[in-house]
Amino acid sequence: MEKTDVLIVGGSAAGLMAGLTVKRRHPQKTVTMVRKASRTPVPCGIPYIYGTLKAVEKNLIPDDNFIKQGIRMHTQAVESVDRGNKTADLADGTRIAYDKLIIATGSSPAMPPIPGLQTGNVFGIKKEPEYLDMIQKALESSRNVVVIGGGFIGVEMAEQIALMAQAGNDAGAVQVSLIEMLPNCLMLACEQEFCSDAESELRSLGVNVMTNTQVKAIQGNGKVTGVQLASGETIPADAVVVGIGVTPNIELAQQIGLEADPRMGIKVDAYMRTEDPDIFAAGDCASKFSFFDGQPTCIRLASVACSEGMIAASNLYAPVRKCMGAVGAFGTTVGKNSIGAAGLTTKAADDASIPYVVGEAVFPNRHPGGLPGCILDMKAKLLFHSETGKIIGGHVRGGEATADMVNIVAAAIQGGLTAEDLATMQYATHPLMTASPLGYHVMLAAENASAKLTGSRAA
Amino acid sequence: MEKTDVLIVGGSAAGLMAGLTVKRRHPQKTVTMVRKASRTPVPCGIPYIYGTLKAVEKNLIPDDNFIKQGIRMHTQAVESVDRGNKTADLADGTRIAYDKLIIATGSSPAMPPIPGLQTGNVFGIKKEPEYLDMIQKALESSRNVVVIGGGFIGVEMAEQIALMAQAGNDAGAVQVSLIEMLPNCLMLACEQEFCSDAESELRSLGVNVMTNTQVKAIQGNGKVTGVQLASGETIPADAVVVGIGVTPNIELAQQIGLEADPRMGIKVDAYMRTEDPDIFAAGDCASKFSFFDGQPTCIRLASVACSEGMIAASNLYAPVRKCMGAVGAFGTTVGKNSIGAAGLTTKAADDASIPYVVGEAVFPNRHPGGLPGCILDMKAKLLFHSETGKIIGGHVRGGEATADMVNIVAAAIQGGLTAEDLATMQYATHPLMTASPLGYHVMLAAENASAKLTGSRAA
Repeated sequence: MEKTDVLIVGGSAAGLMAGLTVKRRHPQKTVTMVRKASRTPVPCGIPYIYGTLKAVEKNLIPDDNFIKQGIRMHTQAVESVDRGNKTADLADGTRIAYDKLIIATGSSPAMPPIPGLQTGNVFGIKKEPEYLDMIQKALESSRNVVVIGGGFIGVEMAEQIALMAQAGNDAGAVQVSLIEMLPNCLMLACEQEFCSDAESELRSLGVNVMTNTQVKAIQGNGKVTGVQLASGETIPADAVVVGIGVTPNIELAQQIGLEADPRMGIKVDAYMRTEDPDIFAAGDCASKFSFFDGQPTCIRLASVACSEGMIAASNLYAPVRKCMGAVGAFGTTVGKNSIGAAGLTTKAADDASIPYVVGEAVFPNRHPGGLPGCILDMKAKLLFHSETGKIIGGHVRGGEATADMVNIVAAAIQGGLTAEDLATMQYATHPLMTASPLGYHVMLAAENASAKLTGSRAA
Repeated sequence: MEKTDVLIVGGSAAGLMAGLTVKRRHPQKTVTMVRKASRTPVPCGIPYIYGTLKAVEKNLIPDDNFIKQGIRMHTQAVESVDRGNKTADLADGTRIAYDKLIIATGSSPAMPPIPGLQTGNVFGIKKEPEYLDMIQKALESSRNVVVIGGGFIGVEMAEQIALMAQAGNDAGAVQVSLIEMLPNCLMLACEQEFCSDAESELRSLGVNVMTNTQVKAIQGNGKVTGVQLASGETIPADAVVVGIGVTPNIELAQQIGLEADPRMGIKVDAYMRTEDPDIFAAGDCASKFSFFDGQPTCIRLASVACSEGMIAASNLYAPVRKCMGAVGAFGTTVGKNSIGAAGLTTKAADDASIPYVVGEAVFPNRHPGGLPGCILDMKAKLLFHSETGKIIGGHVRGGEATADMVNIVAAAIQGGLTAEDLATMQYATHPLMTASPLGYHVMLAAENASAKLTGSRAA
């Protein structure tokens, strides 16, 4: 029987981060990772396989990095866990005795309740190299592709399939349609104006963006031929990609008697502990609460998963690190725009009856604006709590520095900074990298809000 | 006699920011700005006139932006100020009555105590369009250019003159030499390894980088012919650019009896007030104290100037905003590297006997690393106070997002965040914009330090 101090089930973001953290925080402990997938794809990189990288092989996380750290790896399913004897049985018959177990089984693509999903060439986005390769082959031989779902994954897939089509031999012969139920793509994460920008970018790439549109059924006999809409219209399709969200993989946890909810995931506390003192859960499979109000949330992002994996691994032998709750920080790129956000949208704040003021800044991201690569209308939109003045959300549209600017906001949210703090701080600027020091977006948007805030903290 | 509520003397970073802030915070007040320069060059953009923009005209801040806000502008020198009657006399005889006066007269290029500085074609970097144009003409007709001083301005000028030479008709015919007294360029602001990277980049552009090198004299009769070093060697030169720092412009303040030090500037308190309750000073001409220990400092950056201009203008009628002291946040680009920092270097911390631990992270700035534009060895190096765990400095080398990543550090320093805070936060990541969520530089470097810190804040 194999023995390990720490057994990690799952080899994507949370699992890998947990493994690395155990090796960093408890270097004397042995770590074994068991995952089902033959290799781990870079999860956020999946859409870029199709239009940019052009091969699944180029989007795999090298196992070497983890093996070098002394992490033992098994490519197997875990069949069962005996919590009493603290052993796990793998599908190949291997039994592993563990001292601590981290469940990081991730999530699976959610599928809408419509008929025809089992038709050939209809795909979710499974994090398995062979499956992702199958999608590539299907896309390569398709003339009409429909993407269902206009969240991140759907928007990124639609963009990349459009690029793939453009690069093909008969450019323009492939029609990509993106179908979103809500009034805008990315609406749950982004401000309305940024959603519209993203849709314009998609359209300029030739994507047929259909918002306020519901899918009724997938058509086809054996292989998909079309997508029938609630309106009655049918969009022809040789391949369909569904990206409407994910559901947590809780089967193993349920099987061994741990509390888990099909939507919320495996129940954990702020230390990522399950009910079993020797079992932790982290990442997409684990339950989450909001940073803002402590309420359960379904925000499932790689950044949350990594943070949770690190926290779970740090707490194995004593509760030293507490999860501060999911903030929701992300970035994406659509056409020539990058969009990112951290924290609440105005809609989310409205829905939660949180009073806020908005500060905005639109300014070139170079100074002078005539420098190469300048985006003249880079924008930051920040939300501050009306009573405390603390930042609760921030949205940025700009160039490739967008995600890092969002992380100023993310750090400010998690650090409890106010509009007044952010307005009077000093920021690094440079002609070739940022706005002018007169117009640095975070500062200017904070100053804009600070001027509106009454009762904000004075010096 | 003209009348104005607020008179601002000086029209660069601090003055412009002060003007905009008065109009934002006190919209009913009239604002008049008096500056000597015919137009205001983008101060940080000056080096980029030569190799990138190719015309002074392209590096001017449009006055329109300020005139549209209702700011009246005079292009004149201020001859005298009568503090008792609260009036200012301009060189053209105009007398302006003011209620509040903001002195933002900036700084002038410092010149080293060596003979021959008055020789033709020896230039400081004056923020005057006509003078900058004269430099361009001189550089265009020079085959040997020597830059004295390897700080930001010197390094940026050397890089841009090298690019200018490359773009010329007889590429390679122009030799640019950069002379620095200290063991490394950028040494007062950057970590040693980043200084070396910058020097390598300069060398790969053909710049003759000479560190540990002192200048003894400028040679030439009428027009410069060479730069004589302390070693006795002479470097041939048709043009010399001196960039060894700046000295505050305190003449007006001294003339009207305000306390001012030739090195430290016009004495102000944390509200940017001089001894005269109706006179404020901000920017390069004003005295500064360090964010870290409250001691006087000579950090003169546009970011500091803008922050001070905003604070001075906010405090005209009541002290509502306090300067938190100069942090020192900046970015620069040398060849294909961008470098930036906020707060203390390890050397500065050592010199001040501040105990610290260093956290480092080297990781690709894209995920997967095969994506276009990836810098495989983007690096963050963060310094945390050993006792409090608070971040006191951060250094980044990477791509165009470097400055924004530095601003995560800048916000964290000014917000008092710890290694533990920064390690467990969630950060936005995206394949085309950042490192993977497993390797986001700020998080990973903070975690690296957090693991070393004893007595750091636990949850």
